[in-house]
Amino acid sequence: MTGDKIGVLGGMGPAATADFFSKLVQLTPASCDQEHLPVVVTSLPHIPDRSSFLLGQGPDPLPALLERIALLNRMQAGLIVVPCNTSHHWFDAMARESAAPLLHIAEACLQSLAGRNVKRIAIFATRGTLKSAFYQRALEVKAFECVIPNDYAQLKIDTCVRSVKAGDVSAGAQALQEAIKSTQAQGADAMIMACTEIPLAAVLIKHDAKHSTEPMPLLIDSTLELARQAVAYGIQRHWHLVSARA
Amino acid sequence: MTGDKIGVLGGMGPAATADFFSKLVQLTPASCDQEHLPVVVTSLPHIPDRSSFLLGQGPDPLPALLERIALLNRMQAGLIVVPCNTSHHWFDAMARESAAPLLHIAEACLQSLAGRNVKRIAIFATRGTLKSAFYQRALEVKAFECVIPNDYAQLKIDTCVRSVKAGDVSAGAQALQEAIKSTQAQGADAMIMACTEIPLAAVLIKHDAKHSTEPMPLLIDSTLELARQAVAYGIQRHWHLVSARA
Repeated sequence: MTGDKIGVLGGMGPAATADFFSKLVQLTPASCDQEHLPVVVTSLPHIPDRSSFLLGQGPDPLPALLERIALLNRMQAGLIVVPCNTSHHWFDAMARESAAPLLHIAEACLQSLAGRNVKRIAIFATRGTLKSAFYQRALEVKAFECVIPNDYAQLKIDTCVRSVKAGDVSAGAQALQEAIKSTQAQGADAMIMACTEIPLAAVLIKHDAKHSTEPMPLLIDSTLELARQAVAYGIQRHWHLVSARA
Repeated sequence: MTGDKIGVLGGMGPAATADFFSKLVQLTPASCDQEHLPVVVTSLPHIPDRSSFLLGQGPDPLPALLERIALLNRMQAGLIVVPCNTSHHWFDAMARESAAPLLHIAEACLQSLAGRNVKRIAIFATRGTLKSAFYQRALEVKAFECVIPNDYAQLKIDTCVRSVKAGDVSAGAQALQEAIKSTQAQGADAMIMACTEIPLAAVLIKHDAKHSTEPMPLLIDSTLELARQAVAYGIQRHWHLVSARA
């Protein structure tokens, strides 16, 4: 049987998963419960740290990722999305083991850059994502210039991600603000928030920016862009229609 | 095998499910991903309208509810929560068919009233929930006095719920504000937001209340109280501990 639900491989971290699910619901054009898309979410967060492994420390997260891919397939997912950028290092391995196709979070971000007047794009990500380099490759294919945050900015990005994971969003926002300033000074026109914890901190910055005179750079939200693509995929296949589901 | 995950029977509606999941994550004492509780969420919203059926219109939602209970049990849920008040009309039927125990949302709200200096409690709910009368029974057992919203207030509550389900939270908030005023005039000390759409509208009211001199009544958030009980249940059983999950 072909799957007909959006499967969300979550838990990396749980707050980012909740943010993804909220965005997916908000982006769905529905006037009542029964017009929404069917979604199953696994937020089973006991997955070894992705970035640590890529930096040579701790166990490989791939077996835990593949277990969850299998679980979502058993739940009849017709599409799987992973609202965690670092785990996209294992995208091909996950896609190979899954009957349901996967959407790639970096491709979703790249689609949102199309037609925008930006050239130099900073990647705000974990050190593991940067080492894996799939964002750099995706940007270069589309002839964008990558701006890799300098040491100071990367330390601030690390703090932002860790603070959000520990539930301290306001410490995360403060660190993010510093990273943005520093990367603007490096000449970036836009930043991809290529770690799904970062948009949670950015909410506070955007709120403050309303009362500020300094212009905010373009911040691409990888969580939002992945949700947008997932909604479009499900709607196109009519997974929201009651008649198709009776 | 005994389940070791929190199973969330969601989709009624999807925005309320997302709100529940966010609250559950925020209430969990965790400093990194791996200290969070394992959660699986089904947001499969093609369930016949609960309130309509209780008012004599449309198909019975029970078969769809039981299908999802079975699915969550297959996913090794060790506890099931249903962040939809109206569906608690079928609580006993769901609990009977489930290996995993269920927490009752009205009991969670009642626990949060213990020790508070309130007596006359208004029930802000769908007409189906009021007709089912499980909140009235739970309040009376604890010697609280029930305030059933008058016709005007109930119309506003209906509008609030419908608006939030259609994604128009600000229309929902406006209607809720009217319902609160009217029910305060009926002598209520506190209100139970006994429909999980209502807390989403209440967020906007609370924000406005910061700039107002009128006192806000005590608003019990059924979504939050259910999340609080679910987190306590999982933590007590150590479902968050990595060592127990290796």
